[in-house]
Amino acid sequence: MKIEKISELTTNRLSVYLRCLNDLTAAGVYKVSSERLASQYSLNSAQIRKDLANFGEFGVRGVGYHIEHLREHLKKILGLDRQHCVGIVGAGRLGMALTDYYGFSQTNFTVAALFDADNEKIGKKIGDVEIFDIKDFARVVKKDKIDVAVIAVPAEHAQSVLDVIKKSGIKAVMNFAPTPLRVSEDIKLKTIDLTTSLESLSYFLAQPKNGNGKIVKPNGQIRRKESIKL
Amino acid sequence: MKIEKISELTTNRLSVYLRCLNDLTAAGVYKVSSERLASQYSLNSAQIRKDLANFGEFGVRGVGYHIEHLREHLKKILGLDRQHCVGIVGAGRLGMALTDYYGFSQTNFTVAALFDADNEKIGKKIGDVEIFDIKDFARVVKKDKIDVAVIAVPAEHAQSVLDVIKKSGIKAVMNFAPTPLRVSEDIKLKTIDLTTSLESLSYFLAQPKNGNGKIVKPNGQIRRKESIKL
Repeated sequence: MKIEKISELTTNRLSVYLRCLNDLTAAGVYKVSSERLASQYSLNSAQIRKDLANFGEFGVRGVGYHIEHLREHLKKILGLDRQHCVGIVGAGRLGMALTDYYGFSQTNFTVAALFDADNEKIGKKIGDVEIFDIKDFARVVKKDKIDVAVIAVPAEHAQSVLDVIKKSGIKAVMNFAPTPLRVSEDIKLKTIDLTTSLESLSYFLAQPKNGNGKIVKPNGQIRRKESIKL
Repeated sequence: MKIEKISELTTNRLSVYLRCLNDLTAAGVYKVSSERLASQYSLNSAQIRKDLANFGEFGVRGVGYHIEHLREHLKKILGLDRQHCVGIVGAGRLGMALTDYYGFSQTNFTVAALFDADNEKIGKKIGDVEIFDIKDFARVVKKDKIDVAVIAVPAEHAQSVLDVIKKSGIKAVMNFAPTPLRVSEDIKLKTIDLTTSLESLSYFLAQPKNGNGKIVKPNGQIRRKESIKL
């Protein structure tokens, strides 16, 4: 059974719109048109209208969106009207950085527990958050009502950690290990692959500065850029 | 002038293919078909063939790809045959976590310097990497030949940090601050927005478990899922 209903790229854009609207609210703005939203935040106004139209009629033609009204709806659509508890597996620097990541405090996620296999770390605290033995994962998940897991362990341990997470019944997982993971369809796995992002920067830096949409093939032939359907 | 020539989603996939091929090489495999690559790593075989065809003919029909040959080509395409030096702005937990992130060691990026405005931190070291005064950014960038900058500061400081980076002449920036940034076209800005990723998990968790491609509009109407062109 496929649970997700609109594409992740759409929900990602809804998140961005919400952040822009929060920003406008903080600046004392109450109404905004899709054109102004697009120009102020480098977005696409037709895309904004199309994305929002999926969920009903929010805007008034010639007037724009009532920001507070739209914010409330976006929060509801994104499930930001309920709280989620996060368990982070891996109490290395990345796991610790995520524990007090300012992004969490802007959303409805609270980090409830860290997990590690290292006896030196187990029992210690990062701020208010305790580091538990990974062996106690299922028990702590149940006790603290954790519904989101974060994988912040080296690549070679990521799959076995994911298997532990699966067994606990958690359905939403954010993975920072730069490795492909096998997961069943009822679990939402979101991989944040910094290696891939770095390599896209590397690709950019490798391009000759006289590019004009041409791709130079290894055999020296030149062909026009193709737009690739995804 | 637009420098980038193929879509970022394509370069992201090329990165993933390269990682899979590295994995196969480590396992002693020398040849692989697009079908086997796809089934082993949950990829799409037609997409693999299409992506690689952008850069020439790598595979032999009925035989598959020669892994070593393809790896070398992918590395060259992604610019992984040259070294890059990274400067991380923000020596908080996130900046420190990134300094020894295992992903960097898997690529051709080396962290050369950290930068912060906090006098308590300036002059200290994280491993071998010194924390410099952000005021000395341009000087250190020139001295250490830094060509990639990472923004790991709170959202409210991100734009001013980006302006400092721009002035130094750096053309590739990775941003971890969850805020839209204004940037000129000659700079490649890659934002890793964990808030957006969290909210896509939140959206997933908010869906009723009996979903079948329907979207419930705020007024209670139900309509079929639409595929949204991107």
